[in-house]
Amino acid sequence: MRTTTLRLGACIMGAGIGIFAPLATGSADDDASPIFGISLPAGYREWQLIGVAHEAGKLNDLRAILGNDIAVKAYRDGTRPFPDGAIIARLAWEYVSSAENDAVFGQAQSFVPGSPTNVQFSVKDSKKFADTGGWGYGQFEGGKPNRSEVLMNTCAPCHAAVSSTNDFVFTRYAP
Amino acid sequence: MRTTTLRLGACIMGAGIGIFAPLATGSADDDASPIFGISLPAGYREWQLIGVAHEAGKLNDLRAILGNDIAVKAYRDGTRPFPDGAIIARLAWEYVSSAENDAVFGQAQSFVPGSPTNVQFSVKDSKKFADTGGWGYGQFEGGKPNRSEVLMNTCAPCHAAVSSTNDFVFTRYAP
Repeated sequence: MRTTTLRLGACIMGAGIGIFAPLATGSADDDASPIFGISLPAGYREWQLIGVAHEAGKLNDLRAILGNDIAVKAYRDGTRPFPDGAIIARLAWEYVSSAENDAVFGQAQSFVPGSPTNVQFSVKDSKKFADTGGWGYGQFEGGKPNRSEVLMNTCAPCHAAVSSTNDFVFTRYAP
Repeated sequence: MRTTTLRLGACIMGAGIGIFAPLATGSADDDASPIFGISLPAGYREWQLIGVAHEAGKLNDLRAILGNDIAVKAYRDGTRPFPDGAIIARLAWEYVSSAENDAVFGQAQSFVPGSPTNVQFSVKDSKKFADTGGWGYGQFEGGKPNRSEVLMNTCAPCHAAVSSTNDFVFTRYAP
């Protein structure tokens, strides 16, 4: 059970945990994430901010969670479940010390984004993704989908472990 | 010098470091930050993301740095110095463990935003703020300006210690 939990945790937590299995083959769309068929949403980097986070441990990243207009409105209005069309983007970067900032502040305290690791998307479509709580998932690295079906198959069980009152979403809105 | 550095560091770092001196009095505009006369920019929470950070130590916060359209364009284009009209917003929240997330992941690793602490703004106006590197500063708590002139007078010297090649701005763009 412990192993299972950690493995599920690796889903939303993203890259770098050694669960990157052999590539999926035979996909009809090489630009789409396997299993769910999620393509990289255009303009996601311009979406509004939902929240931020730091994941310690092996992930050791800083992250920002952005949403498209439907997702952000649902967050601000407290609408659950999220309406179809909502997309949540989780960006992550390596967690690095800022020597430049620390020199100004006179002490080691400042941690900033290093290189990007990956971007994950949660896409709400209650009909298309009915078998996975109404959500489809995708992970992209350098603009390209991670093709691991093993990875993609961990997403839904991990999110299913989050409170259903928040519609299986980890992130809360940061005012 | 050490003391000076730490005190300067407290500026951009914001609240909670014991430098909140007596309130300024006699301001012509109670909705504006003292010294620089910065008012809370409308709609700043909807601005696009520049970057994120974690400040450890006494601040112990998670932060997001947002920018208005002028600031974000300058970041993406690499334009320095920033053009007049650029505004950078630094939001911060208490740095708290997420028991909910940690329970799913099977280990203590997840840190998320708690209560908001304060929001700081850097406003570029090369003429109006010529004496402080072209930047004016303001800090707001619960939507109201912090009225401490002592606090506001620490902002410019602290930013002056940042590389001038980045136009005295701490935050780098997170792609």
